[in-house]
Amino acid sequence: MTNLVAILGTGQFGLVLADALAERGLAVRMWGPFADTVRTLRETRRLPRRVEGFVLPEQVDVTADDREALRGADLVVSAIPTQFVRAVWRRIVAALPARARAAPLAIVSVSKGIENGTLLRPTEIIADVLRGAGPGGAGIPCRLATLSGPTIAAELARRLPATMVAASTDGALAAQAQDCFHVPWLRVYRHDDPVGVELAGATKNVIAIAAGMVDGIGAGDNAKSALLARGLAEIARLGAALGAKVDTFFGLAGVGDLATSCFSPSGRNRSCGERLARGDALEDVLAATSSVVEGVPTTRSVVELARARGVEMPITEAVHAILFEGLAVRDAIQALMDRAPKAERVG
Amino acid sequence: MTNLVAILGTGQFGLVLADALAERGLAVRMWGPFADTVRTLRETRRLPRRVEGFVLPEQVDVTADDREALRGADLVVSAIPTQFVRAVWRRIVAALPARARAAPLAIVSVSKGIENGTLLRPTEIIADVLRGAGPGGAGIPCRLATLSGPTIAAELARRLPATMVAASTDGALAAQAQDCFHVPWLRVYRHDDPVGVELAGATKNVIAIAAGMVDGIGAGDNAKSALLARGLAEIARLGAALGAKVDTFFGLAGVGDLATSCFSPSGRNRSCGERLARGDALEDVLAATSSVVEGVPTTRSVVELARARGVEMPITEAVHAILFEGLAVRDAIQALMDRAPKAERVG
Repeated sequence: MTNLVAILGTGQFGLVLADALAERGLAVRMWGPFADTVRTLRETRRLPRRVEGFVLPEQVDVTADDREALRGADLVVSAIPTQFVRAVWRRIVAALPARARAAPLAIVSVSKGIENGTLLRPTEIIADVLRGAGPGGAGIPCRLATLSGPTIAAELARRLPATMVAASTDGALAAQAQDCFHVPWLRVYRHDDPVGVELAGATKNVIAIAAGMVDGIGAGDNAKSALLARGLAEIARLGAALGAKVDTFFGLAGVGDLATSCFSPSGRNRSCGERLARGDALEDVLAATSSVVEGVPTTRSVVELARARGVEMPITEAVHAILFEGLAVRDAIQALMDRAPKAERVG
Repeated sequence: MTNLVAILGTGQFGLVLADALAERGLAVRMWGPFADTVRTLRETRRLPRRVEGFVLPEQVDVTADDREALRGADLVVSAIPTQFVRAVWRRIVAALPARARAAPLAIVSVSKGIENGTLLRPTEIIADVLRGAGPGGAGIPCRLATLSGPTIAAELARRLPATMVAASTDGALAAQAQDCFHVPWLRVYRHDDPVGVELAGATKNVIAIAAGMVDGIGAGDNAKSALLARGLAEIARLGAALGAKVDTFFGLAGVGDLATSCFSPSGRNRSCGERLARGDALEDVLAATSSVVEGVPTTRSVVELARARGVEMPITEAVHAILFEGLAVRDAIQALMDRAPKAERVG
């Protein structure tokens, strides 16, 4: 049974998930690292710069107190940008009471990225932090799941219909997450390949940046759809090399999330790519948004993973070269079109 | 070697393919069934109602003479709406000279649909017609390939970059087609699963109608992407049941074409679904366009195929019920969202 759900993070996705959990009749406590954001949320129930028009239900508690973050929670939703997951969990874990917990922490991660340097997925980062934590450094036992899918937050804020998958090797935890988020506007499927779901969620952001570049130069929907298909093939190849099931990439958390990320006007990674293609500098694009563009740091990690495993990822390599090595967008697209004619290879 | 390519059909896709073939330096002859369209094309090189802004290169010959259609052609492109393929080929074959041809007819079909009644794919329809034709009814030998992919014609008319697959069990023919359409704005991949490519091209039109309905009720991109992913899963399931390779549905001719069909504003099937969702009657929607909406008749064929093979296709069934049985769009979407929670199953 789930009574209280703790959400780490007050970003737009955390907010719309809190709305669903509250609608489901669950007690919800959000913890945020920024005191001013927490104060604004407590006082106004709104964060218009994050999610326009959204009002956080009154029954959702909001705190900036690290010691309060997880207290009494039956389920923890980790809704932190990937590159900050480690720091946040270290901070939260350090504030936990010294006595051992009665049950393992049940954690659902919704972050979509891969940590720079370590090349770990979000649930791996959390496990890594918890492994060395707890009383006497004996570790804090946990159960991990990933929640993902095509879920542009601005649409969830309006309670438009959407789907997600709850993925875990722990079937009971996947079912618990499925149950917690089952509201009229959300349909959650259980899934047993958390590695694939998490990798798909991370890598699709890189392809979405490329899709935005296609938009930025006005190359059209044929080109963008080709990019989507070829991008899907290369991220599925990487997934297979890293132990994921290829099928996962052809489901909601793969092609579904990829489609909305490539085509929704409000996707952050797509928008970033579009502005880059129009000539804006990366620093300016990132500075102009209050949100984190997950795909930018994740591109570094994905390229490292692909090279280490010998997986050919021409689109990801092109995004990397544009973001970090000064390659021009038009030159990158022409180079992709000019590759030698060959047979199509999927997965 | 290809010298002369004959194109059957003067629809928008035939026109943009003629442009590519001419750019490649090939002689091209288009045949059209409508004398007035042929005259307009010969006199003005334009068909603004079909493809705005497009100008047919001067070296492309256009004829309405059945006896001229295939004369001397090394390759025939069949660019006819699916439900008219049989009638057109019967007419063309009846006008062929009685003496046997030196070599089998090399044919590339670009139609995307399934014939009502017979439930045959376009290349199967052509083979069926040719089987009983020729001198003494001995049959006209042929080689068959399918050309498909994310190719909204309005974008090809502007020579925006696009990709296609040339699929055949006859590798030499696939390579010939790949070579003929290899121009700077087109990248053609060879493919060895013509059954999958043809089924994907037909069935994606049904899902695109559903995507237009999602647009019509303003359900958002999360819902449309979920529809795309779940639609992909069900058309791949049908493909597998009919002998196609599942991977084909996850490539350019599957998910690539599906994406552009679901998201491009100019997609005809998507637009049809959007107007239906806004309350227009099917007859009015079809009467308002000079083009054929392939997905409408194909929905009947796909539902028949799925039922005969026992393949579960809830989205296709919903489109069928909306098109032909008076189900309301909102009720159909709510029914899809309300299905019992379960595990995701792909392919």
